[in-house]
Amino acid sequence: MSIKKINVGVVGATGLVGETFLEWLDKSRLQIGALRLFASEKSEGQSRQALGKTWPVESLKLGCFDGLDLVFFSSGDEISREWAPLAVKSGAYAIDNSAAFRMDPNVALVVPEVNADAIGGRPSIIANPNCSTIQLVVALNALKKFGLKSVRVATYQAASGAGKLAQQELLDQILEGPNGSPVASQFPKPLAFNVIPQIGSFDESGFCSEELKIKRETKKILSMPELKVSAFTVRVPVYNSHSEAVWVELGEDVSRSEVVSALHSQVGLVVTDSIRDYPDPKMANGKPPVYVGRIHKDNEDPKTWLMWIVADNLLKGAAYNGIQIAERIFAS
Amino acid sequence: MSIKKINVGVVGATGLVGETFLEWLDKSRLQIGALRLFASEKSEGQSRQALGKTWPVESLKLGCFDGLDLVFFSSGDEISREWAPLAVKSGAYAIDNSAAFRMDPNVALVVPEVNADAIGGRPSIIANPNCSTIQLVVALNALKKFGLKSVRVATYQAASGAGKLAQQELLDQILEGPNGSPVASQFPKPLAFNVIPQIGSFDESGFCSEELKIKRETKKILSMPELKVSAFTVRVPVYNSHSEAVWVELGEDVSRSEVVSALHSQVGLVVTDSIRDYPDPKMANGKPPVYVGRIHKDNEDPKTWLMWIVADNLLKGAAYNGIQIAERIFAS
Repeated sequence: MSIKKINVGVVGATGLVGETFLEWLDKSRLQIGALRLFASEKSEGQSRQALGKTWPVESLKLGCFDGLDLVFFSSGDEISREWAPLAVKSGAYAIDNSAAFRMDPNVALVVPEVNADAIGGRPSIIANPNCSTIQLVVALNALKKFGLKSVRVATYQAASGAGKLAQQELLDQILEGPNGSPVASQFPKPLAFNVIPQIGSFDESGFCSEELKIKRETKKILSMPELKVSAFTVRVPVYNSHSEAVWVELGEDVSRSEVVSALHSQVGLVVTDSIRDYPDPKMANGKPPVYVGRIHKDNEDPKTWLMWIVADNLLKGAAYNGIQIAERIFAS
Repeated sequence: MSIKKINVGVVGATGLVGETFLEWLDKSRLQIGALRLFASEKSEGQSRQALGKTWPVESLKLGCFDGLDLVFFSSGDEISREWAPLAVKSGAYAIDNSAAFRMDPNVALVVPEVNADAIGGRPSIIANPNCSTIQLVVALNALKKFGLKSVRVATYQAASGAGKLAQQELLDQILEGPNGSPVASQFPKPLAFNVIPQIGSFDESGFCSEELKIKRETKKILSMPELKVSAFTVRVPVYNSHSEAVWVELGEDVSRSEVVSALHSQVGLVVTDSIRDYPDPKMANGKPPVYVGRIHKDNEDPKTWLMWIVADNLLKGAAYNGIQIAERIFAS
C-alpha cells in the first residue's frame, strides 16, 4: 500500500509526552508534510525541533486544524474535550492521550498490538489508553487464550507520569537528602526517598482515579467486561518508566513453557525467560517495547501466575502508542 | 511484678539493626546492668554509646556470653547458627534477628502483639521475624476473626533493609543523576531512580527468598498453615521504612466499619481511617508502630480488602520487635 504524506498537529507540544511524540515522529513510518505545534498561550513564541526543522509553537484558535490529517492531543482532559471534536470536524483523526473520551462507548480505545481492528476507516477520535493500562494489556492479551479470570496489579510509577515539573521536583527534593523535609507541590506528598500510594484523586469507593482507569480501560481494550481487575497504584522515586507486579488468574492450569511461549508470540512484548533475571525501569527508559519477566506460578494457586511488566510510560505508555495508531491509519 | 536488672549482649552491634537496638534499649522498660557489644574482628577497637555510657566492641570468643541474661543477634544467618545456641547454653535468652532458626519447629517466631504466648519460660532461642513479615502480620492478626483465606502482598522495601553500605550506595548513585550509569555492588542492579524486583536469591519456583520468608513466616506466626500467602518483593529507592500494598481475602463479607474497627483494636497498629489519606515511609521513619491506611473493599470481589501497610523496618521490623520480646520476658 502506498504511504500518504500527511499534515500533523500536536496539541501539548511543549509537554513531556508532546516532545516525545515529536522525537519519535522522525523514527516512524509516517510521511509528514507540514507539522503544526500547539500549546497554551504561555508557550507562544517558543519553538521545537522535529524532522530536521524548527517549528513555531502556536496557541489553539478556531480553524487552527484546517488542512491537518492527524492531530495528537496531550494537554489534559479539558483541552481534549473541547478541541478533539473540532479536529475531527475539520477532517482530521484525533489521537487523544487524555482520559476525556476513553470510556465513551463510541470512541475506540486502542493499543495497536491488541485491538487495532477497533480503529475506524474515517476521521474520528481515537483514545490512547492510560500509560499503566497499555503495558498491562499487551501482556494480558497474550494470555487471553488461556481464559483470563482476574488480574491484580500493584504499580511502581515514575515521576515522569506527572510531567516535567514533577520530574524536576523529584530532583530538587533529592538534593535535600534522606532527612530533608521538602514541600510537595506536584505530588500529594514529597516523593524523594518516599513512595506515595495515590495517583489521581480518590472517589467514594476508596480507589484512586489511576486505579479505576486501569480497571475500566483494561476491560474495554480486551473486550472482557466480565474480567475482574483490581489495581493498587503507587508513585515511586523513579525518573521514567513504570513497573507493575501482577497476579493473573487464568481459566486453565497450564505449564510455564506454555505461558512463556504465549508471551513470546505477542507482538510488542520482550520476554525475559529466565526466572533469575528481569527487566527494570532504568533499562526500559527510551525503548519502545513492553518488557515482561519474573514469570512464575503461584504454587498455592496453580492457575495464578505472577509477572513483572515494565515499559517507558512516555513512549509505549503514551507517545509511541499514539504513533503506532497513526501508522496503522496512514502507513499500513 | 518486679523488674529484674539484666545483663545484655548485642551481636552485630555496629550494624544498622544493632545500632538501632542500642538506641532503643534506652527508651525501653528493661533495667540494664552490664552491656556487652560484639561485632566482627574488623570492628574491634571501636566503641558505641548506649545508656549514657561508652561501651567497647569485642569480637566473639568462647565463653563471651557468660553472665549475660539476654543476647540479641543481628549478624546474619551463619553467626546466629553457630553462636545463638551457645548463648542459650550459657543461660541467656537469644533473640535472633537472622533467618537461621525462624522456621525451626522448636523455635518460637514472635511478634509480641500477635503471639507473645509463644515465648517460653526458660532461656531459649526466640526468632525475630523478617521485617516485611512483621508489619504484615500485625495488620492480619486484627482481621483473623473474619477468617483469613488468602493474602497477596507487593512490597516497596527501603535500602536500609540491605544495610549501611547499601544505604550509602543509594546516596552515591543518586548523585550521578537520573541518566547516570552507576555500578551496583550491594544490590543486584542500580537502585537510584530504579526499582528492583528481587530481594534475596531465587529458587527453582521463581520466588525470591524474601517472598518465601513472608509466605512461611506469616503462616507460622498466625498459626495458620492453610492460609494462602503470595508475595512480590521489590526494592525501591527509599532510605528507610518498608511499605506494602496488600489484598486480603476474608471468610466473610463484612462492612468497612467492621474492618476499620478491628484494625483500630489491634495493639501496635495505627490506623489512618480516611479513604483519602495514608501513611508513607518518610513519616513512619523512626517511629515504632505499624501504620495502615487505604483500607477499601475490592468492589468486584466483596470479601477482599485492599490496604497499605507501612513500618520502620529497622525498628518494628527488627530492633524494636526484639526489644518488645525482651520486655515480655524481663519487664512484664
